[in-house]
Amino acid sequence: MITGFQMQQKVLFKHCDPAGIVFFPRYYEMINDCVETFFDTALGMPFERFHPHRAVPTAAIETRFIAPSRHGDLLDFRLVTAAVGRTSWTYRMTGACQTQPRFETSATLVHVDANGTPTPWPDALRQKLTAYEAHNDP
Amino acid sequence: MITGFQMQQKVLFKHCDPAGIVFFPRYYEMINDCVETFFDTALGMPFERFHPHRAVPTAAIETRFIAPSRHGDLLDFRLVTAAVGRTSWTYRMTGACQTQPRFETSATLVHVDANGTPTPWPDALRQKLTAYEAHNDP
Amino acid sequence: MITGFQMQQKVLFKHCDPAGIVFFPRYYEMINDCVETFFDTALGMPFERFHPHRAVPTAAIETRFIAPSRHGDLLDFRLVTAAVGRTSWTYRMTGACQTQPRFETSATLVHVDANGTPTPWPDALRQKLTAYEAHNDP
Amino acid sequence: MITGFQMQQKVLFKHCDPAGIVFFPRYYEMINDCVETFFDTALGMPFERFHPHRAVPTAAIETRFIAPSRHGDLLDFRLVTAAVGRTSWTYRMTGACQTQPRFETSATLVHVDANGTPTPWPDALRQKLTAYEAHNDP
Repeated sequence: MITGFQMQQKVLFKHCDPAGIVFFPRYYEMINDCVETFFDTALGMPFERFHPHRAVPTAAIETRFIAPSRHGDLLDFRLVTAAVGRTSWTYRMTGACQTQPRFETSATLVHVDANGTPTPWPDALRQKLTAYEAHNDP
Repeated sequence: MITGFQMQQKVLFKHCDPAGIVFFPRYYEMINDCVETFFDTALGMPFERFHPHRAVPTAAIETRFIAPSRHGDLLDFRLVTAAVGRTSWTYRMTGACQTQPRFETSATLVHVDANGTPTPWPDALRQKLTAYEAHNDP
Repeated sequence: MITGFQMQQKVLFKHCDPAGIVFFPRYYEMINDCVETFFDTALGMPFERFHPHRAVPTAAIETRFIAPSRHGDLLDFRLVTAAVGRTSWTYRMTGACQTQPRFETSATLVHVDANGTPTPWPDALRQKLTAYEAHNDP
Repeated sequence: MITGFQMQQKVLFKHCDPAGIVFFPRYYEMINDCVETFFDTALGMPFERFHPHRAVPTAAIETRFIAPSRHGDLLDFRLVTAAVGRTSWTYRMTGACQTQPRFETSATLVHVDANGTPTPWPDALRQKLTAYEAHNDP
């Protein structure tokens, strides 16, 4: 009955550009913060315990910015697992303000060791990542 | 005989994460700096003259991070026009360190007025954007 | 009986440099986030309502970084009013991890109108700013 | 006949806030870029060779923002040595647009080893740092 991991982030002054809307590179900081919080609170594997022995660099990411977000907007981030590979994890994330979608993104991260070599997910972590697959929703 | 717009950016301390490699949201700042420099030096239309009457927000972008970049790397950015629409512009960009590719990205920007409404490119600007199409290379 | 405005911020991956500690410009984003949250929750005057008619640019700031902060540290920010001028406000802020001080900063902001001209604080706001003076603590 | 280290940085879109002026934490990225470039081109000791064996964290910094900088402004940064200690270095930096001063800052960095312990400057580096003292100007 998981409907994905959810968190809220407010659009702050620092995120906004001279047009008064979120500057798109700042969205990627917010997206990364959501992934970091997911690993911390949903998986019980905070990034600060991961490093420096392992890391999860982003290998590919594609994003559609559907509508601009403004200073003060409360954005709801929702993350689901799209696929868990031997050493990779693909997630889908959406950002919305109330009922209005703002962006949708899909990214693949790779689990690497301290040398940057792809390394299989530990079973316990793989199971938790899998539990957040959307089709596990009823 | 255009082979695309090129510029070099050095990976600085500020771009790097605890793993000593470029943190991916910082790549988007470098990508945006390259687009901003392209508009300034290649198109003769610096962003600071654009704003606040017009803007070119990014509507979609997808990126593949091929190999990590480290502090001190000199990255060669190369940008070509992939398509010019009535109000949009799609570019492809690559980043490489010497002969080693680091990322490739493709993005679509929309030319909007002060209200955020898509607005046709002025003819002169459209012609310049078109001149950077890759198939205009001999 | 006010002991200053307090909020907690976790040191995230994005804040840290190749040495694994907070990169000092990122502290200023955290400091600004604390000031923005103070205006929102303590003063009832969120920055997004301020802009674009008024703004509170930082005119001067000095900071002592006492000990490095690491990824995952939970930092307690504490802000008190040091002085309220006709158009300015000086605050002192400390950041600590449990009992260990990490930084202390003092900054002066100026209340300006849309043209950047210093403008007297409205009385209600001045009173609220004054209420956060340290000597109002018992 | 040294008049300090100088470099120019253009105010880019990414530096600016909804008021259309440089957001002050972005100034600290520009200040750090200037220091990093100084170590690279003036001292012949690029930060990427320093790390991870040594580092130069900022221990204290104070800044006066004299006038706002706008998108497109060409800022001239000028850096001089204020003092060289056994393990520390204090610099003064100014930023100006043409003849108009924008900020002045003074900061102390500490030369530390991989454990963060203050470590004496190597003689060669100390001499170069000293050569940039303002009173060495004729």
